Amino acid sequence: MNKLVIAGSLAFDAIETPFGKTDKIIGGASPYISLAASQLGVKPQLVSVVGNDFPEEFLNILSSKGVDLEGVKIDKNNKTMFWAGIYNEDMNQRTTLKTELNCFETFSPEVPESYQDADVLMLGNITPSIQKTIIEQFKQRPKMIIMDTMNFWMDTTPNELEETIRMVDVLTINDEEARQLSGEFVLLKAAKKILAKGLKYLIIKKGDNGALLFSADGKMFSAPALILDTVVDPTGAGDSFAGGFAGYIAAKGKTDFETVKSAIIAGSVMGSFCCEKFGTENLQVITEEQIKARVKQFEDLTSFKF
Amino acid sequence: MNKLVIAGSLAFDAIETPFGKTDKIIGGASPYISLAASQLGVKPQLVSVVGNDFPEEFLNILSSKGVDLEGVKIDKNNKTMFWAGIYNEDMNQRTTLKTELNCFETFSPEVPESYQDADVLMLGNITPSIQKTIIEQFKQRPKMIIMDTMNFWMDTTPNELEETIRMVDVLTINDEEARQLSGEFVLLKAAKKILAKGLKYLIIKKGDNGALLFSADGKMFSAPALILDTVVDPTGAGDSFAGGFAGYIAAKGKTDFETVKSAIIAGSVMGSFCCEKFGTENLQVITEEQIKARVKQFEDLTSFKF
Repeated sequence: MNKLVIAGSLAFDAIETPFGKTDKIIGGASPYISLAASQLGVKPQLVSVVGNDFPEEFLNILSSKGVDLEGVKIDKNNKTMFWAGIYNEDMNQRTTLKTELNCFETFSPEVPESYQDADVLMLGNITPSIQKTIIEQFKQRPKMIIMDTMNFWMDTTPNELEETIRMVDVLTINDEEARQLSGEFVLLKAAKKILAKGLKYLIIKKGDNGALLFSADGKMFSAPALILDTVVDPTGAGDSFAGGFAGYIAAKGKTDFETVKSAIIAGSVMGSFCCEKFGTENLQVITEEQIKARVKQFEDLTSFKF
Repeated sequence: MNKLVIAGSLAFDAIETPFGKTDKIIGGASPYISLAASQLGVKPQLVSVVGNDFPEEFLNILSSKGVDLEGVKIDKNNKTMFWAGIYNEDMNQRTTLKTELNCFETFSPEVPESYQDADVLMLGNITPSIQKTIIEQFKQRPKMIIMDTMNFWMDTTPNELEETIRMVDVLTINDEEARQLSGEFVLLKAAKKILAKGLKYLIIKKGDNGALLFSADGKMFSAPALILDTVVDPTGAGDSFAGGFAGYIAAKGKTDFETVKSAIIAGSVMGSFCCEKFGTENLQVITEEQIKARVKQFEDLTSFKF
């Protein structure tokens, strides 16, 4: 078992899908990442910030699952970040109704001393310069640094993004972002160009078409997406994937290709659970048996004997 | 080993991709289907038509691979069907420059007596009413009837299409077509509605995202697409998939779910070979060793140990 530090946003989310509507629930990337990782048996340590209006019961959701909150600042002068979004009928498009950064606008992360011996560092999708600051605060570099990012940073802060990518081992982006970042349409060519930035592994997420894994030494793996009957709320599926991935790596304490392949499945499992209920609801309650059964579903979905 | 009858278009194709340009080469669906099937050890029997201008050397390409051409009419009064198309730089879009149906406009297929004991019937993508006529000419229904179709028939002859679908066991369409045919966006819901038309299996092709298999009794399988470095010409990839699929089923002589899963891989293998060269070029020359090696690539791409 290895130690896992997670950095990412903590926010209020208000979500509307064809299946219903939530008030301000616990959201941002880090609750999804942390809960998914904790379901794999690790006790992640979180770096984040909330405002003066964040309810203690929301923090308790995380701490009750073993998430260490020492690195979560409470900004007494600002409100918590807030995001509101609505999905279309087919759930394939999302419109952001509101994004208030609030306390994240001036967030200066501090990695506590007790986090210093982290083996795995999972950087959720935030400003690349903040991700970089967090990496630089580690006196000893974690063995594996995983970074999630998105097209927004490719458009707005490409230089900082490039610098940060060059400091990490694993990057997770979606297929369109891989094409944008590399300038290559064919995913294999895109992957080679992006890996050349110094990565060990690149994960290309393809939504309901699964995910691809590419290694610097030319290996490849294709994970399917589970064929779900009903997607209630896709919010946080990518973050749950990241949490399942990082949690599995930390739980196994290994970073070889075979382990990373299975970590992709762990991520896919967590992403699939996430979609079945609103927000982090499902990630809070799933059991080890449910996880095992779902891994079996992934095996059944892909295995064949020629 | 079971007997396989294939029906489908025979044509001249003129193809332009960023990698080059062909004159009128052997094309239409049936050469891809037949050659892919013959690579799996079966000697398919073909039902089709060509005009008075079709070179014997093109027919020899098929007969030299063991394809029985007794059911291929030569229409002395018409020219051969002709299709010309050009791909964009990213190969993700194709523009049809010309479609001349010629001898296919008045084609009335005749299933020869020697084809009557077919076990597997593969109907390539042609007019549903022609597909229906072919089925009806069998005195004894083949054990497995596989039908390929496309959105064009959903738009133009939906009733004939519906009638023909209700006569077959396996339907192959792409994801957008599955949504159109069912009126359901979520693929699992679309699959259930389409299977309810009386199919045993539905195959949903997702291009470079692989293919999904759904069975009437609720089983599912997800096949990845091979991650290819270079796609030289995607023309006929879907037909090669159909040929590999039907050829594998005929070669094994079984139609259970495990066999059909592997048949999907056989189809994916043939589709991947097809894309690497222009037209049917690669399907004419690949060896058993190359096929085995590629099946292994598919295994490596999807296998994991949790």
